[in-house]
Amino acid sequence: MEISHIEHIGIAVPNLEEAIAFYENTLGIKCFAIEEVADQKVRTAFFRIGQTKIELLEGTAPESAISKFIEKNGGRGGIQHVALAIEDGVANALAEVADKGCALIDKAPRKGAEGLNIAFLHPKSTHGTLIELCEDPSKK
Amino acid sequence: MEISHIEHIGIAVPNLEEAIAFYENTLGIKCFAIEEVADQKVRTAFFRIGQTKIELLEGTAPESAISKFIEKNGGRGGIQHVALAIEDGVANALAEVADKGCALIDKAPRKGAEGLNIAFLHPKSTHGTLIELCEDPSKK
Repeated sequence: MEISHIEHIGIAVPNLEEAIAFYENTLGIKCFAIEEVADQKVRTAFFRIGQTKIELLEGTAPESAISKFIEKNGGRGGIQHVALAIEDGVANALAEVADKGCALIDKAPRKGAEGLNIAFLHPKSTHGTLIELCEDPSKK
Repeated sequence: MEISHIEHIGIAVPNLEEAIAFYENTLGIKCFAIEEVADQKVRTAFFRIGQTKIELLEGTAPESAISKFIEKNGGRGGIQHVALAIEDGVANALAEVADKGCALIDKAPRKGAEGLNIAFLHPKSTHGTLIELCEDPSKK
């Protein structure tokens, strides 16, 4: 598995518009896209910092993983996941880490925000951190 | 404030050696330094992914912020903070964000791991995320 860079950091926030205002007005970075990912029940806002994007996530339903994260966190936001850009393909990487005993949330890549192919490793195998693997199919 | 890149992502882990083994053997990235930061009561292990470092953190005392994070998280690790590399100095950036109403944990820069000048913003102003600002004084 070849990891080229950290593709994005996923940050859960209770209110997307209020959080965008903080990142834009206080940190001085510009939101370049807002997207709803219906099957994950989230709305996302993207910022770029060097090689890496910040992805703010607001749940759109109580059963969304983001809403549950915030509820578990006493109603506060926080960093929910880190996404690694995989050079040689997410499917290959999943096979490789599974072979080494890593539990998977997604046994095969699926579509995520921005048209990326994504898959999550299970936190029980990663020492607690929700790690996403992703690749941009337009760059193949 | 000029943010050039994400300097590192701080990940709390219950056991540093076991977590290092996962990152090295399963993800295939090499730990390049282990450091104890006595005044923060942590041991840290560093990995490089593109522009950004992964900093694994293990608490060395129950009163360490890392130990408290893990205790609050049901004994599990997770992503504890994100650190932004500031081009035009942490002291300037602190003054700028404070002027915009952002609460600070550190009112002035202090020394962190790897000899960086660092300061933390208060999560109550950042929509829940612990954000560190840092600069490498050797690059001035």
